Amino acid sequence: MILYVDANYLSPYAMSAYVALREKGLAFELRLLNLQKAEQASAAYAAISNTQRVPALVDNAHNFNLSESSAIAEYIDERYRERGHSLYPANISARAKARELQAWLRSDLQHIREERPTEVVFLKRSPAPLSAKAQTAANKLFHAATQLLQPGQQHLFDEWSIADTDLALMLNRLVLAEDPVPEHLVHYAYLQWQRPSVQDWVNLPRQIG
Amino acid sequence: MILYVDANYLSPYAMSAYVALREKGLAFELRLLNLQKAEQASAAYAAISNTQRVPALVDNAHNFNLSESSAIAEYIDERYRERGHSLYPANISARAKARELQAWLRSDLQHIREERPTEVVFLKRSPAPLSAKAQTAANKLFHAATQLLQPGQQHLFDEWSIADTDLALMLNRLVLAEDPVPEHLVHYAYLQWQRPSVQDWVNLPRQIG
Ligand SMILES: [Ca+2]
Ligand SMILES: [Ca+2]
Ligand SMILES: [Ca+2]
Ligand SMILES: [Ca+2]
Repeated sequence: MILYVDANYLSPYAMSAYVALREKGLAFELRLLNLQKAEQASAAYAAISNTQRVPALVDNAHNFNLSESSAIAEYIDERYRERGHSLYPANISARAKARELQAWLRSDLQHIREERPTEVVFLKRSPAPLSAKAQTAANKLFHAATQLLQPGQQHLFDEWSIADTDLALMLNRLVLAEDPVPEHLVHYAYLQWQRPSVQDWVNLPRQIG
Repeated sequence: MILYVDANYLSPYAMSAYVALREKGLAFELRLLNLQKAEQASAAYAAISNTQRVPALVDNAHNFNLSESSAIAEYIDERYRERGHSLYPANISARAKARELQAWLRSDLQHIREERPTEVVFLKRSPAPLSAKAQTAANKLFHAATQLLQPGQQHLFDEWSIADTDLALMLNRLVLAEDPVPEHLVHYAYLQWQRPSVQDWVNLPRQIG
């Protein structure tokens, strides 16, 4: 298998797909696209990725290409059901909440994503204080996370799922910028961040531009 | 069951959830939120919708609330597997491509969404010509759709899926603005739009503001 990711390992969605493959115990080769040079918009990559974004998975064994990190996680969980750690809860309602969270984190909270880019998380950049709009988004994030996580709870559902990694990344945009974050969410994000599959992504070699 | 949607029936995601429920043959009551009055940000609605967005589903039979339209479609397809029309393809690879498309349409192409809001589709507003950025996004949409749809093909996969409705809505932002769209995609979007579940949403009573 091949996973296409951004060359500086900054895409939160590339990270999500990387962690998903690692958790499933699937062997894969990383291939790098330089987004600053718009390599994702090349004709060669458009033939691999319908959406011309990272990540993209090439599953040669099934002659199959797929983009969008949440679709990639669902695909490998279904295609390789017996392998490694399940990426989604088995319970229908819990699985629905995992999908709700993944969809939401990818399509809302844009002020957090803009003011707390992943350079804050992976390159320890120190950003300006949050704008009022970003603080509103942060409060919305804390509300949603608190609905799903009791103090002391280590995973969203009975066991780890890929939604934990996605939520921890979003929280760590704020935690690592030293923005105020409720204590139990800081603790949750910290524990999620220790997961070996996540740490392997965190420790990939990045060029500080 | 209860489905919360925007009071003017303009949200493409509310439409997607509405069509999904109709296709499954599930009975539901519509409840309306006035987004201009920010009713989705009220404490009452935050207790129903974790993400404080429309649509939200309340499945009283399972004491379960869920937001995000793609998660809602997956949930009702799994929970009510024997009912109505399947919302996703049975084949693992086809199902993955349906999810890829749903995730992409919800998180990219923002210039099309901004310059061709659903008022163009549902209220026949005539917009200004596309900017260069929106035209680039439109070309990307045509590329992706053409990869998935041969000329004359009426559905993305062997049978109708909810991804067809989502793609047809995105294409119709352009078609109904009289922007240039490849002929076979115009035809596909037109046929998808005739589906009774879609027409019922199109014909809901809207106030022209
Ligand atoms: Ca780079
Ligand atoms: Ca864990
Ligand atoms: Ca209204
Ligand atoms: Ca059809």
